[in-house]
Amino acid sequence: MTESSSFLIPRGFRFAAVAAGIKLSGRPDFALIVADAPASAAAAFTANRVTAAPIQVGKEHLRATGGKVRVAAINAGNANCAAGQAGLDAARATCAAAARQFDCPPEEVFPSSTGIIGVPLPAEKLIAALPGLAGSLGAGSSHFLQAAQAILTTDTVEKTAFAHIDLASTVAHGAAPAGAPAEIRIAGLAKGAGMIHPQLVPHATMLAYVLTDAEIAPAVLAGYLGDALEASFNRISIDGDTSTNDTVLLLASGASGAAIGPGNSAFAAALNHVCASLARQMAADGEGVTHVIELRIEGAATDAEALRVATAIARSPLVKTAWAGCDPNWGRILAAVGYSGAQIDPQRIDISFGELPVCRDGGRAPDFDEASAHAYISQPEFSVSIHLHQGPGQCVFWTTDLTAEYIRINAEYST
Amino acid sequence: MTESSSFLIPRGFRFAAVAAGIKLSGRPDFALIVADAPASAAAAFTANRVTAAPIQVGKEHLRATGGKVRVAAINAGNANCAAGQAGLDAARATCAAAARQFDCPPEEVFPSSTGIIGVPLPAEKLIAALPGLAGSLGAGSSHFLQAAQAILTTDTVEKTAFAHIDLASTVAHGAAPAGAPAEIRIAGLAKGAGMIHPQLVPHATMLAYVLTDAEIAPAVLAGYLGDALEASFNRISIDGDTSTNDTVLLLASGASGAAIGPGNSAFAAALNHVCASLARQMAADGEGVTHVIELRIEGAATDAEALRVATAIARSPLVKTAWAGCDPNWGRILAAVGYSGAQIDPQRIDISFGELPVCRDGGRAPDFDEASAHAYISQPEFSVSIHLHQGPGQCVFWTTDLTAEYIRINAEYST
Repeated sequence: MTESSSFLIPRGFRFAAVAAGIKLSGRPDFALIVADAPASAAAAFTANRVTAAPIQVGKEHLRATGGKVRVAAINAGNANCAAGQAGLDAARATCAAAARQFDCPPEEVFPSSTGIIGVPLPAEKLIAALPGLAGSLGAGSSHFLQAAQAILTTDTVEKTAFAHIDLASTVAHGAAPAGAPAEIRIAGLAKGAGMIHPQLVPHATMLAYVLTDAEIAPAVLAGYLGDALEASFNRISIDGDTSTNDTVLLLASGASGAAIGPGNSAFAAALNHVCASLARQMAADGEGVTHVIELRIEGAATDAEALRVATAIARSPLVKTAWAGCDPNWGRILAAVGYSGAQIDPQRIDISFGELPVCRDGGRAPDFDEASAHAYISQPEFSVSIHLHQGPGQCVFWTTDLTAEYIRINAEYST
Repeated sequence: MTESSSFLIPRGFRFAAVAAGIKLSGRPDFALIVADAPASAAAAFTANRVTAAPIQVGKEHLRATGGKVRVAAINAGNANCAAGQAGLDAARATCAAAARQFDCPPEEVFPSSTGIIGVPLPAEKLIAALPGLAGSLGAGSSHFLQAAQAILTTDTVEKTAFAHIDLASTVAHGAAPAGAPAEIRIAGLAKGAGMIHPQLVPHATMLAYVLTDAEIAPAVLAGYLGDALEASFNRISIDGDTSTNDTVLLLASGASGAAIGPGNSAFAAALNHVCASLARQMAADGEGVTHVIELRIEGAATDAEALRVATAIARSPLVKTAWAGCDPNWGRILAAVGYSGAQIDPQRIDISFGELPVCRDGGRAPDFDEASAHAYISQPEFSVSIHLHQGPGQCVFWTTDLTAEYIRINAEYST
């Protein structure tokens, strides 16, 4: 697996975006990803028990097709959530119109929405935009980027990630047919800057679309996606709020001609790279964020306990405000560990900022140096390691600070 | 029970406070509550698994005495938490010095600390201040207020509450002896403005001391305290962070001469009033708070499920920032209900702001009026009611908004 420095767009997909009039700003807000032929699909959705209409419709459609998607239709600026039957009707009407436009069954259209909750979605604006979108589809990197930009809300930059697998140097399960291209490409686009604490099932207000031109059956694709989620989207939190709209859609066009079966470590690594990169980009572009923190929890009783500790820290306003102030107040971290519910021995907790010990055996480290610690966490990205000395459990988790700018953004959102 | 408009201080207690040099500001930071004779005591402590040294020592002392306290010694400005053996030594040395000062066993001294975590407590400053404090003790309201002020940290005002029971008009269990005073008095003092999400066991960074001159056995006192907590301190959250130092101490001097047995509804009501008043005062004085919100959850499957919903809402940065902006964005509340983990039917959720319906059957209420909703939640105190239509479970919970001022306070705390 090689991280692509250039935009290698997976073959078999085209992209378009337009300003359909959903965002008040008048910026592009409606994107299409269109597969040349029905693509294998696997998806993951939010664990929130209140789910947006497009999530309900998207699940139905994937069930009906057994995991085939021809068109992903994504609008930003309105979440189409908490809109009752009218919301479902709006999502279905959009899918039906896209199906007519692209001459496929409505069930092969996968809808997504992101934006404000509880405001009716004007589906007629989306439907009216479809002919123009169909006429402007393209397979190049500029079209891909336009789609990545149109799905943004409070994000300040688009999030994209790329990887490719050189088949000449990799033993792929399932041999590539003769004459097949020498590589498989993976590309992802995502959005998400607030209401970000994904808990995806089978294990996403972020939206992420990951595309590959490998040939993979839907059930196999689901397995790869499930594994990738646990080291990426399900390991980030910006504000601790789990959205009603989180969605990750993985599509495989097969256009490379290279088939991938289960257990292909090169493909898994490439997919994991793309998902982890998108997740970290979301954290870095989180609303008002000035610091991105990698939490490394070790020595927990179990991995689940390690995640519990990471989540408590990532959701603590006091820890996050201390980070915003570059304040090496490790006591707040210790308090969050204490109320996380995880099994701990308060006398055996070690905390380091990067390589700097700040807490040893539950108390201030003998060599704690406040000035060095302050300087270290003044960096835009830094790591915090916590060792609990309880067992083999561990996790890596990415989170952010909490700033006055986050408050400004979210106290002014809909008014 | 009558809410006292005047400061009726329970008989049998004296108070003093001084600036011992713990707070950097130089303000009073060390308070004593001294009972004329050992008082019956019941206490509740934080559920955080990391606990401050004074909590560990206080529990030991109450066990050793079977629930007797002569002196409560409370410092602000330093939490004496995460300080290892040195922290325990500091708490014990302070108790031993107070015991010598007041000629009682060390176990009858109950220590409390609040402030920054992980910084060694200079017990020698507290010990040096004891003779002066002993010389300035007084039983009047001005002394009571001085104690209430000295225990504050980021609080802007002291929190006190008072109640009295007129025995002539109340059937008290356990008759008052002839010649006994005609009333029982209850008074409370408390602090807490940040790291406030108490989960007290048996069911507190807040510190609260509630005093009565009723005569009550420690075991009976514990029962009253447990009940009172569940409708007061355990039903507030400012920032969702559960402290390492939360403590509630209830002391009964018996100096009124009136005995109270179990099941005395007048006493329970008076105690509940004092505890609920202190809890609401904490929320209102929360760090950076501009709105206090009463959450009324109804129709949950169980009371525990109702509390789960209230807690999720009270901890949601997106809900709390919307309140800060007087933004009637009920969709964020609905999202928090959805990820709370409680049993819900998304199509059967009703939300009202005061008497104004904003969400019906999981969607925007037909008569939702944004201007009215905005005006209503622009008030400094307002209520949000949520009906889940799942069962008889309910709870009332007090929480706050989240403002840029909270960030300012907590990004600058220790630096």
